Amino acid sequence: MKGVIASRAPGVPVVDVTHGIPPQAVLAGALALRAAAPYFPAGAVHVAVVDPGVGTARRAIAVETDGAVLVGPDNGVLGLAAPADRVRRIVELTDERFFLSPRSRTFDGRDVFAPVAAAIATGTTLPALGPERRDMVRVGLPPIVRDGSRLRAEVVYVDHFGNLATNVQAADVGTVRAVEVAGCTIAGLAPTFGDGAPGELVAIANSWGLIEIAVRGGSARDVLGVGAGAPVSVVVA
Amino acid sequence: MKGVIASRAPGVPVVDVTHGIPPQAVLAGALALRAAAPYFPAGAVHVAVVDPGVGTARRAIAVETDGAVLVGPDNGVLGLAAPADRVRRIVELTDERFFLSPRSRTFDGRDVFAPVAAAIATGTTLPALGPERRDMVRVGLPPIVRDGSRLRAEVVYVDHFGNLATNVQAADVGTVRAVEVAGCTIAGLAPTFGDGAPGELVAIANSWGLIEIAVRGGSARDVLGVGAGAPVSVVVA
Amino acid sequence: MKGVIASRAPGVPVVDVTHGIPPQAVLAGALALRAAAPYFPAGAVHVAVVDPGVGTARRAIAVETDGAVLVGPDNGVLGLAAPADRVRRIVELTDERFFLSPRSRTFDGRDVFAPVAAAIATGTTLPALGPERRDMVRVGLPPIVRDGSRLRAEVVYVDHFGNLATNVQAADVGTVRAVEVAGCTIAGLAPTFGDGAPGELVAIANSWGLIEIAVRGGSARDVLGVGAGAPVSVVVA
Repeated sequence: MKGVIASRAPGVPVVDVTHGIPPQAVLAGALALRAAAPYFPAGAVHVAVVDPGVGTARRAIAVETDGAVLVGPDNGVLGLAAPADRVRRIVELTDERFFLSPRSRTFDGRDVFAPVAAAIATGTTLPALGPERRDMVRVGLPPIVRDGSRLRAEVVYVDHFGNLATNVQAADVGTVRAVEVAGCTIAGLAPTFGDGAPGELVAIANSWGLIEIAVRGGSARDVLGVGAGAPVSVVVA
Repeated sequence: MKGVIASRAPGVPVVDVTHGIPPQAVLAGALALRAAAPYFPAGAVHVAVVDPGVGTARRAIAVETDGAVLVGPDNGVLGLAAPADRVRRIVELTDERFFLSPRSRTFDGRDVFAPVAAAIATGTTLPALGPERRDMVRVGLPPIVRDGSRLRAEVVYVDHFGNLATNVQAADVGTVRAVEVAGCTIAGLAPTFGDGAPGELVAIANSWGLIEIAVRGGSARDVLGVGAGAPVSVVVA
Repeated sequence: MKGVIASRAPGVPVVDVTHGIPPQAVLAGALALRAAAPYFPAGAVHVAVVDPGVGTARRAIAVETDGAVLVGPDNGVLGLAAPADRVRRIVELTDERFFLSPRSRTFDGRDVFAPVAAAIATGTTLPALGPERRDMVRVGLPPIVRDGSRLRAEVVYVDHFGNLATNVQAADVGTVRAVEVAGCTIAGLAPTFGDGAPGELVAIANSWGLIEIAVRGGSARDVLGVGAGAPVSVVVA
């Protein structure tokens, strides 16, 4: 992909955001893109390839928002970074003149998304790439079920440190009294990872704004033995 | 290595192709380089360091092909990207003026290959680097044994997804009737990863042109419990 | 972090040195920074974020040495690259005008260190960033205990290959007669990884200048079953 961009958009800087999204984890990719994109210069072109459906009938799209252009498969990976009220234009990538030729059936990152991103970065406008579409596939965070003062949530992402991010936006809930996971109860939210004793479980608001379970100086994944999909309860005031 | 290049070739863009080649896996490195190099601009300098023999008598070389310059140890890692009919010049890197000084015995990537690549990227021609050589070490894909309509092949590379790439070039064989691996039989080649039911084994032509065994939405390595070197039979028409 | 730098210091090249430091491993980060920094152009700005104390009262600092500017938490990660006799200035990062706003409690890499590095790379001098400090936190290599001709040392870093780096600087000891680890005795230092038979244990001086235990064509970590903290004896002449 980088070779294609270097060939077709010489001099355009390319930045690796992450190569750590687990295979097929469209939601994790969508979360990472939502978290990273706002920090880039306005109009930056973001390519996101978590693409288990490559070669099937799933669409390839480019999305212009009020701050960025997103390129990738239309499977939800672009969705969280492009909330509907910020989308200006969605086009389906159909004009094969912008693709590599021959095009493989198994790596659209290289053959479609990288050359299209290079085209956009060098001045091609979205309407040139294919027909406008009214909507795109969206994957949301799993729904949270409210049960009195208890929010039934789950782990949606496990990072490099073994921290367990949940689907609960810290800003959306009031005071947190407790977080329960894997039979353990954590009292309230700590301000940061360094609170509590070494080895102790803490719940924090992470840098993506999500409530996250961590172990000071350790890995919550390893200590608790749970991962993505594990149920979490957040008890609010 | 990047610091050396930034110091000696300021402003020359550097791209990471992969840091995922398994230790000592010269053939995997050679396959990755062959797959990536054609997508870069003509004349790009590629440095490949899979170098278990660093510090021994193995040569250090630079190879000019019709499309690129390759720099690395002469152990085969450069060979698949430099087929004999495309090689223009091979030189042994002997002129220590281009190396870092002092030079360690354990990291020629930093001390030899990076500074030589920086020199080439800033205009040094190959003859200045050392004497011309007539040949280079080549590691081929393991041979395929034909047994009637059955090709006895093997897994040569396991990627990040757990996909099992074989030594069979899809373009070199006719219609594939079946692929057999680890006691399982896969009927024919699927066009892409997304065919079949979730969890089902598929065989495809991967983005490097090799027949590859995958599991839809999963890891063939984990499902089958095999890795590089595992025997694979491809039954052709 | 890269988005912040791209936004605030457009055109300034950014290089990934490593994303492979184990979580919370401040000493490993300090060793990697000490090893890499000298190879970069004079005045390069190095950001090092191994930061288990993010959000606590630990200081954030920038350090100017005779060859570089280092930015990161004041927890020791910058210390080995900034020996006292090479430090020109240490400032505490207190001027929030250089930070992102709002600033999270959990990711100073993005919110503090990246924007400060961008400011320095675009001409801000250290005194503008905050008050000068006389010292910084230092983490040293664990002490080596001399017992006759035996140096009682330990493994301080395990790399991607499973090589076991110790706290013994090869240049600081005389002739090495033997290295003992995990019940095995290795006779003397080999010049390089490729010495000995495949699968054999060797001790070498690694590219960071440290005595390191390796297995030719294999992983010393896997063969010996030990990691960081494991005791090592170096028997000298």
